[in-house]
Amino acid sequence: MNIQLALDRLTIEEAVSIAGEVEGDVDWIEVGTSLIKEFGMDSVKRMKARFPNKTILADMKTIDNAKYEAELCFEAGADVMTVMGAASPATIEACLETAGKYKREVMIDLLHLSDSQKEKLLPFETAIFCEHVSKDEQEMGGQKNELARSMFQGLRMAVAGGITEASFNKLQMLRPEVVIIGSAITKAADRKAAASRLKQLSKQEEVK
Amino acid sequence: MNIQLALDRLTIEEAVSIAGEVEGDVDWIEVGTSLIKEFGMDSVKRMKARFPNKTILADMKTIDNAKYEAELCFEAGADVMTVMGAASPATIEACLETAGKYKREVMIDLLHLSDSQKEKLLPFETAIFCEHVSKDEQEMGGQKNELARSMFQGLRMAVAGGITEASFNKLQMLRPEVVIIGSAITKAADRKAAASRLKQLSKQEEVK
Repeated sequence: MNIQLALDRLTIEEAVSIAGEVEGDVDWIEVGTSLIKEFGMDSVKRMKARFPNKTILADMKTIDNAKYEAELCFEAGADVMTVMGAASPATIEACLETAGKYKREVMIDLLHLSDSQKEKLLPFETAIFCEHVSKDEQEMGGQKNELARSMFQGLRMAVAGGITEASFNKLQMLRPEVVIIGSAITKAADRKAAASRLKQLSKQEEVK
Repeated sequence: MNIQLALDRLTIEEAVSIAGEVEGDVDWIEVGTSLIKEFGMDSVKRMKARFPNKTILADMKTIDNAKYEAELCFEAGADVMTVMGAASPATIEACLETAGKYKREVMIDLLHLSDSQKEKLLPFETAIFCEHVSKDEQEMGGQKNELARSMFQGLRMAVAGGITEASFNKLQMLRPEVVIIGSAITKAADRKAAASRLKQLSKQEEVK
């Protein structure tokens, strides 16, 4: 199980600095969509340059122009990119094909999809499927990701959306490959301690 | 009727230069998603600085974190932003609310939506609804936007996706407020002549 540190609504300098604080307790570092749209591929390049041995995920949220966007972020050093499950199959296929050429990975973001939309994504089984409650639904509707089951269980899975130490164990039942944590680390009074506790939780679950 | 010049897969310098070539015959200038993800908000700032009297659309393709992304692009000088119709209603509402504060506009991108998904967007009637065939569907499936009707007719509409001089008249039947043209101008041997012919077509239709 990998902990992915999601870095959003920050400058590149702040993001790199926070990642440095918790480096020992996180496995993947996510360059958030807001950094990409504010600063472009510099955000990905600088994160990979600073943390060459970490898995760097570029949260591209690609929904069209897939080959071009995939090449952009892989050339910038991303190990994993995201594509929206809401995209056309042609877009998802192009991401997977380009990732294959670069020997990188694709995470499909399941944000705001119905079960019937999700079912159509099951054939993309080499991707990582991310069950995701959006920031806007969290902030406006009070929703959090507290999934107890998913049709993607058994495939490569990630979970994201307002995950805290309290909700961590429940989500672990899904056996995700990646648990994505943003503000529970970035906004903690003591970030290093928070990341360390989450890392411990992830290890306990693996032992069971 | 406005012609929106879509600028994608270019450097900022190339995009500004092409916009300058056809400035007299286009009404809106779109800073494409690929420019935003490659270069960040600099792409929007520099386009608005060069063309302060044009309507600048930032093709943000926002699908989450709406207030933050809206503020980013409006502060950078965008007059219009795009949000994905596939986003949660909370995201679309936040874009419209933020646009209202800035006295700017929101275009909802209807990319890859079913009719039942589109119907749910009808209440957002202050937005511009963009019927859009994706680049990836164009390039991989040979599809173009050749819509003869839309449930959004009568509301503010835009059309996008492989539009050429040949398909222009058919799409005009939808009475769109905005026709989005990319490669039919940017890849024309004589860009100025191509833009001028499209502008003439748009005027003819308005007379009818």
